[in-house]
Amino acid sequence: MKHLLLAAVAASLVLPASAQEPAPIPSPGEIATSAPAKDWTAIAPSDLLVMDLAPDAKGTPRRVVIQLMPAPFSQGWIGNIRKLAAAHWWDGTSVNRVQDNYVAQWGDATEKKALPEGLATVPESAYVTRSIAGFANVSSFMGRAFMINKKLKGPPLPPPFDKAEDAYTGVVGFADGWPIAGGPQSEYWPVHCYGAVGVGRNMSPDTGSGAELYTVIGHAPRHLDRNIAVVGRVISGIENLSSLPRGTGALGFYENEAERVPIQSIRLASELPAAEQPRFEYLSNDSDSFARYADARANRRDPFFIKPAGGADICNIPVPIRPIAAK
Amino acid sequence: MKHLLLAAVAASLVLPASAQEPAPIPSPGEIATSAPAKDWTAIAPSDLLVMDLAPDAKGTPRRVVIQLMPAPFSQGWIGNIRKLAAAHWWDGTSVNRVQDNYVAQWGDATEKKALPEGLATVPESAYVTRSIAGFANVSSFMGRAFMINKKLKGPPLPPPFDKAEDAYTGVVGFADGWPIAGGPQSEYWPVHCYGAVGVGRNMSPDTGSGAELYTVIGHAPRHLDRNIAVVGRVISGIENLSSLPRGTGALGFYENEAERVPIQSIRLASELPAAEQPRFEYLSNDSDSFARYADARANRRDPFFIKPAGGADICNIPVPIRPIAAK
Repeated sequence: MKHLLLAAVAASLVLPASAQEPAPIPSPGEIATSAPAKDWTAIAPSDLLVMDLAPDAKGTPRRVVIQLMPAPFSQGWIGNIRKLAAAHWWDGTSVNRVQDNYVAQWGDATEKKALPEGLATVPESAYVTRSIAGFANVSSFMGRAFMINKKLKGPPLPPPFDKAEDAYTGVVGFADGWPIAGGPQSEYWPVHCYGAVGVGRNMSPDTGSGAELYTVIGHAPRHLDRNIAVVGRVISGIENLSSLPRGTGALGFYENEAERVPIQSIRLASELPAAEQPRFEYLSNDSDSFARYADARANRRDPFFIKPAGGADICNIPVPIRPIAAK
Repeated sequence: MKHLLLAAVAASLVLPASAQEPAPIPSPGEIATSAPAKDWTAIAPSDLLVMDLAPDAKGTPRRVVIQLMPAPFSQGWIGNIRKLAAAHWWDGTSVNRVQDNYVAQWGDATEKKALPEGLATVPESAYVTRSIAGFANVSSFMGRAFMINKKLKGPPLPPPFDKAEDAYTGVVGFADGWPIAGGPQSEYWPVHCYGAVGVGRNMSPDTGSGAELYTVIGHAPRHLDRNIAVVGRVISGIENLSSLPRGTGALGFYENEAERVPIQSIRLASELPAAEQPRFEYLSNDSDSFARYADARANRRDPFFIKPAGGADICNIPVPIRPIAAK
């Protein structure tokens, strides 16, 4: 079969190499799949949102699982989102906008549904943080930045960590499994990569409550970084949003009510019966496996490839996330 | 209405500013839309492929228009693609693979359909070129590179032009309306941005005839640059590919024949009756309008934005392309 990434399959089918035949260099996916259990970190169900869209035309269920971003990012909004989910506020709302190579967006299309009491108004200052002390693996974030920069060789530089090559800012890397960026004044912010979930707002930076959310379904729109809040990411079922019909109205909004995709429910996974709670884990960015994975994303040496790129932008190093096999 | 890019609409509705009220800073889209006719370049119908998929479930036609890349890139393959289109070879083939955040791919799923006589076998060396003399606007390509690099100020450096910030290579820019990259030995190659069309191949670099094509429907997979040939880009109707159901087989291939999306026909636009030939134009990258557009993509100053990024990766500066209004 002729296709552009035959190697990904072929290599996975290769038998153990004999002494004469060295095994092919593994692909990034193979490195992640073969990572030991200790290199994976479980995601708490209390940090997962489960969004069930109405079944498709064939009656197939459409579930999207979103991981909420931990402090110190997403201050304020996450509390609002937890309250909205606990109040079942999104039930009966819909996906109202799908703009090609940009975002899918959901919430209350009528703009009239009352919000729960006690939602925080989050100030512009929350778009960045000057402390990443909340991250367990901040040191690895600093240390690993060099991996995605073909020009930085040898040991990573001390904090403020050395600049990774990036078209938008001086520093990019990973913290507790999240892609984040940093600026000259030791500010840090989450990055708008594919699947990132953010908070829609009006013109004033403090108008985003978290009730109106979007996810990126195209090339990373990083011009939105620090201009709109990233508060999570889709970790399962994004195809249920990215393959929706594009809206024909301005900005990809659906022009007819009938085009909107109903949201049956959005729940915190921790509110579901234990047996129904989805379980996921991510490849820890302070693990040797992640180091090998990120290096392989930046330098493809598996059989299909001719010229390793020698680098990668941070959004082309998606953090491996997978369901935890039921015990 | 609350959404994340209200400004794009609002600004376009602003009335002429009074002496007291300066007009808001235009968005990149507004800069392109208001560019004078002289800053646009028409695309020859002989460089356009018109792909008609079978109508969707509602009977809506699905047309995709692809612009073929000029010499010196896409040597060999373009000749093959023109022969395949002239032979109506793709008629009755199908879209066989849709992998989320990666590619949609089409061709002969059976792998048994005989190819036309006289197709060229294109060697690995064609993945890059050492001459860009074929580009009318190569000087602007060199000169404009600085625009997407927040760190390079002042006049552009002489050829070999100064390095633009890029995670993959030393040089990126635009040539005759195409995003391209360059390497240390004055090699140049086209870039895998969203909508880029490339040539599927097997493990050997010279196995891509052009009969099996794919387009990027996610974050730019630039690790494919120089490893697979980019020979064009979708300039209209990509939503007819990017919103297709994702394949559930390995690499996003459709597992059941019934899932494949039939291709009714693929024609060179120049083979269609003159009245039916689609006409498009792109914003010339050597124009002042493009300079302002690219600068605005890298530094959003229109009303919605708080912090201009100060840079952009080349795939986040899509070249404006639009239909030419019928006369």
